[in-house]
Amino acid sequence: MNTSEFRRRGKEMVDYVANYMEGIEGRQVYPDVEPGYLRPLIPAAAPEEPDTFEDIINDVEKIIMPGVTHWHSPYFFAYFPTASSYPAMLADMLCGAIGCIGFSWAASPACTELETVMMDWLGKMLELPKSFLAEKAGEGGGVIQGSASEATLVALLAARTKVIHRLQAASPELTQAAIMEKLVAYSSDQAHSSVERAGLIGGVKLKAIPSDGNFAMRASALQEALERDKAAGLIPFFVVATLGTTTCCSFDNLLEVGPICNKEDMWLHVDAAYAGSAFICPEFRHLLNGVEFADSFNFNPHKWLLVNFDCSAMWVKKRTDLTGAFRLDPTYLKHSHQDSGLITDYRHWQIPLGRRFRSLKMWFVFRMYGVKGLQAYIRKHVQLSHEFESLVRQDPRFEICVEVTLGLVCFRLKGSNKVNEALLQRINSAKKIHLVPCHLRDKFVLRFAICSRTVESAHVQRAWEHIKELAADVLRAERE
Amino acid sequence: MNTSEFRRRGKEMVDYVANYMEGIEGRQVYPDVEPGYLRPLIPAAAPEEPDTFEDIINDVEKIIMPGVTHWHSPYFFAYFPTASSYPAMLADMLCGAIGCIGFSWAASPACTELETVMMDWLGKMLELPKSFLAEKAGEGGGVIQGSASEATLVALLAARTKVIHRLQAASPELTQAAIMEKLVAYSSDQAHSSVERAGLIGGVKLKAIPSDGNFAMRASALQEALERDKAAGLIPFFVVATLGTTTCCSFDNLLEVGPICNKEDMWLHVDAAYAGSAFICPEFRHLLNGVEFADSFNFNPHKWLLVNFDCSAMWVKKRTDLTGAFRLDPTYLKHSHQDSGLITDYRHWQIPLGRRFRSLKMWFVFRMYGVKGLQAYIRKHVQLSHEFESLVRQDPRFEICVEVTLGLVCFRLKGSNKVNEALLQRINSAKKIHLVPCHLRDKFVLRFAICSRTVESAHVQRAWEHIKELAADVLRAERE
Repeated sequence: MNTSEFRRRGKEMVDYVANYMEGIEGRQVYPDVEPGYLRPLIPAAAPEEPDTFEDIINDVEKIIMPGVTHWHSPYFFAYFPTASSYPAMLADMLCGAIGCIGFSWAASPACTELETVMMDWLGKMLELPKSFLAEKAGEGGGVIQGSASEATLVALLAARTKVIHRLQAASPELTQAAIMEKLVAYSSDQAHSSVERAGLIGGVKLKAIPSDGNFAMRASALQEALERDKAAGLIPFFVVATLGTTTCCSFDNLLEVGPICNKEDMWLHVDAAYAGSAFICPEFRHLLNGVEFADSFNFNPHKWLLVNFDCSAMWVKKRTDLTGAFRLDPTYLKHSHQDSGLITDYRHWQIPLGRRFRSLKMWFVFRMYGVKGLQAYIRKHVQLSHEFESLVRQDPRFEICVEVTLGLVCFRLKGSNKVNEALLQRINSAKKIHLVPCHLRDKFVLRFAICSRTVESAHVQRAWEHIKELAADVLRAERE
Repeated sequence: MNTSEFRRRGKEMVDYVANYMEGIEGRQVYPDVEPGYLRPLIPAAAPEEPDTFEDIINDVEKIIMPGVTHWHSPYFFAYFPTASSYPAMLADMLCGAIGCIGFSWAASPACTELETVMMDWLGKMLELPKSFLAEKAGEGGGVIQGSASEATLVALLAARTKVIHRLQAASPELTQAAIMEKLVAYSSDQAHSSVERAGLIGGVKLKAIPSDGNFAMRASALQEALERDKAAGLIPFFVVATLGTTTCCSFDNLLEVGPICNKEDMWLHVDAAYAGSAFICPEFRHLLNGVEFADSFNFNPHKWLLVNFDCSAMWVKKRTDLTGAFRLDPTYLKHSHQDSGLITDYRHWQIPLGRRFRSLKMWFVFRMYGVKGLQAYIRKHVQLSHEFESLVRQDPRFEICVEVTLGLVCFRLKGSNKVNEALLQRINSAKKIHLVPCHLRDKFVLRFAICSRTVESAHVQRAWEHIKELAADVLRAERE
């Protein structure tokens, strides 16, 4: 494909994308296909000779779209939102064209420097403590990770390195393995599964702290675990506090947990993957109070801040803590500027070596929405979730299971898990809307997450009418 | 930005991208900026009110482009290539629009299924042993990782889990920490720094095996290390063999190393990050001989197979080995199909939970080039490197340092490291072309990598003329 054909096909693709977004409401949100549907539809091997672009774009409608779960449909209320906006898509086109691999400053200075400054912009939007910003001479700073899972893992590895160095400095005879055997990390029993995975990967114990009645990690439970583990000779070194859990958007009590971490010399990582975006609104900023106690903080603009995946924003107070865990400098990656204080080589901040020019997406989105536009977007989602909440509360057959703070409503039919499982099964079989469940303690609960950029009150109302109808069917079937 | 503005701006962006690619030869390949150049050029915080698209696109030329290292310039000969093609860019636009997060089959069946089939297509192009393919009922299969670093880490973690389970099955009293303390992994002293990092992250010893005169890991050196370590009570469990090292594109001897790994029950991971793409050509396929001994194999289509970053292709013979290292199943990620044999939940194959619809890029590229088009592209690059090699060989002041197999030429002025460092410094200060160095044993060596999709013989000739001129200057300066 030469450049002039790209000009033509690129513009056709822009229209295809625009048509897809405009027509997405008319597509069934969840596909009809069965496992293995795709393989028989395409050849068993790549073609020897080129296919035409027309063939391919036709196959997109014939083969791909029937198997797509439409995350940007206004009838998609599952998981959490994943971001989508036109400015981000435009930036991604530019990112693809520049196509630099920003593992070091020299590999593309603009890629590194824009990232550092965008992370400062975003940190300021959140009113993060200044110690997390890079600015001109800060010790902290931000980095774009691929996902919150990676941010948690990177934080855990940095904490692990730090505690090993500290203990070996005091007792040089201690081996790394002898220390690792005793290391123990903590998170709430509501924390995301990626926290448990980070522990697995890092080869350290990870203990779940029982959350309280509001599904929050509190001081008393953490303190109790700490005392027990220290008495048993273990070495507590790392705590993940979650702001906005995946199950039910509950918030660990950072103002209680933070001081304990500082006092006990444990690394505190705050994971606000979903909820973090809301903190750009002054009325939600209080939910972040206590972040000043943290060593690292992370949230995903690619969830709820209109920056398409992947863009997971992570800040640390001491950048040397991260780079200390990873730093290796082979000749082919050395460059003449790297010992300057102004230089950031982001390869030392993350698991992969290569990285795309992802900060372009932040730059385009922040500028084309403005802070006010982003705040308005968050507020609209929160308002829609409260609208759904009040619909549920008006129906005495249903209950709200957790206080609704942001864009997630956890609800269920009063009654057995079985009846709620049946309701969800009917909802997802009907495929007019799409939801996923969670377990809260022993209760099976339905999650209604405001997701799409284009979801409006009318969609929420229609979804609720639909759920009520199916609930009536379920309850009728139960009585029979 | 509404959809109709996106139609307009998207088409303008397509033209901007096309113009950038067409005019890239006219841009200085390496930027003039100094560290910290960008921050003073942009505001200290995000704007409250939206900026216009015109403002932003103007700033791309004013602020971003002056700081870009142009990886796709035909005068870029540094590192290794990073892929760029129009079909991949078109696919990425579609990927951004669909914007699904393919962590499980249910989260978007097409995203998972196309990936599995594309990895089979690619495996067949390479003539990988059938045991690496998923096909309809295979135990193996492929996954797209973000980078070779992640693939190496995932392989190491899978191997670690496997050996721990095996040893604990035999001796249930052994703790994980007691085993980990004794685990030892191996790679050549020429392996990529990401291998050492994988060892660091995984908390296991990683030993460098001295390579032979051709910078290859051989049986004897590996065997020697094994015997010594086993005698010292260590437990060898993992070997990374590199096909096409980053320093000099040397090849570990897989036919020697492979049988040792199998005999000693060590996981063999083959990293062919750069060279792997060449194996789609029958005349280079012999370089992959011995892969049949491997447990996992990885290479980067995002380097040399025209699929834009990120797309790192990894195969395993036993998918349960990977998923066994990571599998965790919270309720909100469960779905009704997941216990079916046909289902792949790729979140169990990788570090991050989220993932983009990256297989679209493979599908577009493989179909729009056809296998023959891809082979022609590889052959052109190899031919250009041999052209450069022969130019160097004709000049008695220079020497070729390693046999030229694919698209990389390692060369230097006969003489001191100092004179070669001076030459590289002049080359990269002149900024007409861009190269990076490596160390081979105690020698400072220049790497000339054929990188750009649009590089032609004329560019290589011009680059050589330029190098010769600067070499004459350096040698003159040395005599004075």
